[in-house]
Amino acid sequence: MERIEHRASSGGWQDVYRHRSGVLGCDMTVGVYLPPQAGRGPCPVLYWLSGLTCNEQNFITKAGAQRYAAEHGIILVAPDTSPRGDDVADDAAYDLGKGAGFYVNATREPWAKHYRMYDYVVDELPAWVEANLPATDARAVSGHSMGGHGALVIALRNPGRYRSVSAFSPIVAPSQVPWGAKAFDAYLGDDREAWKQYDAVELVKGARETLPLLVDQGDADEFLAEQLRPDLLRAACEATGHPLQLRMQPGYDHSYYFIASFIGEHVAHHARALKQTS
Amino acid sequence: MERIEHRASSGGWQDVYRHRSGVLGCDMTVGVYLPPQAGRGPCPVLYWLSGLTCNEQNFITKAGAQRYAAEHGIILVAPDTSPRGDDVADDAAYDLGKGAGFYVNATREPWAKHYRMYDYVVDELPAWVEANLPATDARAVSGHSMGGHGALVIALRNPGRYRSVSAFSPIVAPSQVPWGAKAFDAYLGDDREAWKQYDAVELVKGARETLPLLVDQGDADEFLAEQLRPDLLRAACEATGHPLQLRMQPGYDHSYYFIASFIGEHVAHHARALKQTS
Repeated sequence: MERIEHRASSGGWQDVYRHRSGVLGCDMTVGVYLPPQAGRGPCPVLYWLSGLTCNEQNFITKAGAQRYAAEHGIILVAPDTSPRGDDVADDAAYDLGKGAGFYVNATREPWAKHYRMYDYVVDELPAWVEANLPATDARAVSGHSMGGHGALVIALRNPGRYRSVSAFSPIVAPSQVPWGAKAFDAYLGDDREAWKQYDAVELVKGARETLPLLVDQGDADEFLAEQLRPDLLRAACEATGHPLQLRMQPGYDHSYYFIASFIGEHVAHHARALKQTS
Repeated sequence: MERIEHRASSGGWQDVYRHRSGVLGCDMTVGVYLPPQAGRGPCPVLYWLSGLTCNEQNFITKAGAQRYAAEHGIILVAPDTSPRGDDVADDAAYDLGKGAGFYVNATREPWAKHYRMYDYVVDELPAWVEANLPATDARAVSGHSMGGHGALVIALRNPGRYRSVSAFSPIVAPSQVPWGAKAFDAYLGDDREAWKQYDAVELVKGARETLPLLVDQGDADEFLAEQLRPDLLRAACEATGHPLQLRMQPGYDHSYYFIASFIGEHVAHHARALKQTS
């Protein structure tokens, strides 16, 4: 592993690491914010999963989360959104291939060799974090858009592994919307049963644990009606009694201005859960 | 004028306008943050001047200032850093021409026709703001690096026009450092007397008003010793008794992470001055 950026930020350090991922078969970059408290002992970790086209830079430069992480003593870990490198399969479209890993383990060629972002985020990345950073094993997860989908799916499928979960503008039902259907068809093939394990609306139906879902969604989001469909998550949660706090935020769009406006509330939400028993 | 971006942000609106500048002879883009209070009546204005290579986007996407402007009810106005357009003179270097206007009125060709950023920022922009936005004529000014230089110079030369001034990592003595000497030689020629009117350290010596200067400077800034030289500002202020609060911030570099870490304190500083008599 190599630290490739190291900048003072809100009393702590905004770093970027490059580390080898055996799961993905490539080097990966990861944004790591260490709050001032991490200089005195291990801190809990909030994982942030970014959206389509993003790498580790978007969240660390635009969300303004560092000041809240410093306030609460939380490490922020923001990985890239797909495997990278010259030998990694790609597609000319922005919504498939590099920058569009969709947090799944691909089973179809040419994707299966490298595109295993689910295993990377759930297992390899936390193992790396907890072995190499001043981090406890208290974990929370959040994300935006494709990364909001990733956060919800990962939390729903791994009861007990995350203390809390939240999402901004998530793709809640990828099986039912163009972005998700295109990616799942490419990465997983046309067996729709296989898609369900990566679809929050499907997973809520069989959830073994009632970890409350906090979701913020702008009502002026340009992708709301076609790609995001929070109504489907609301219906699924109501049908099964799964706890959901879905906040429709008037006037907000899909941009980082939306995330920056509410990230403080999300960090506080996760801080409450992370500190409860740690 | 045309509004080309309009995004909800921290309860207000982060807009970008394109307007015609007669002073510069080109269209200019300007970031404008309207806090929620601007929906109920006119608000005071903090002008932000950006650094080399920047346009109106850097500050509005990376500084995280909106939440503080919303808290204090202050409009943020962040203009581009030079004239723009195909007929505007330019240079291949990042530190001359487009993106490097240095907030001066150029007197030498090929720059004199368009490069009049001093007049634009001091006169034309505030006139446009106060005529077209819900803004009072209570003004404050801040900026970063080349823009910190601009903020200090503009405040020192225009007593009474700004209620307060601050700067991050400013080029305090452009006449004495490579960035400034190169730009001034190109824009103003080799008459070093003409340079003094755009040099904060020179202006402090003859300042007619003792508007306190708030300056934050990272001590790990990669440009500190060669280009920024806050020691020269400190010496000039001590020699003349000009009030200066120069805060050396340990570990911080020249990046927007530094600005984001302290912008809340700067906005609060300006809010106190802007609200005192408005």
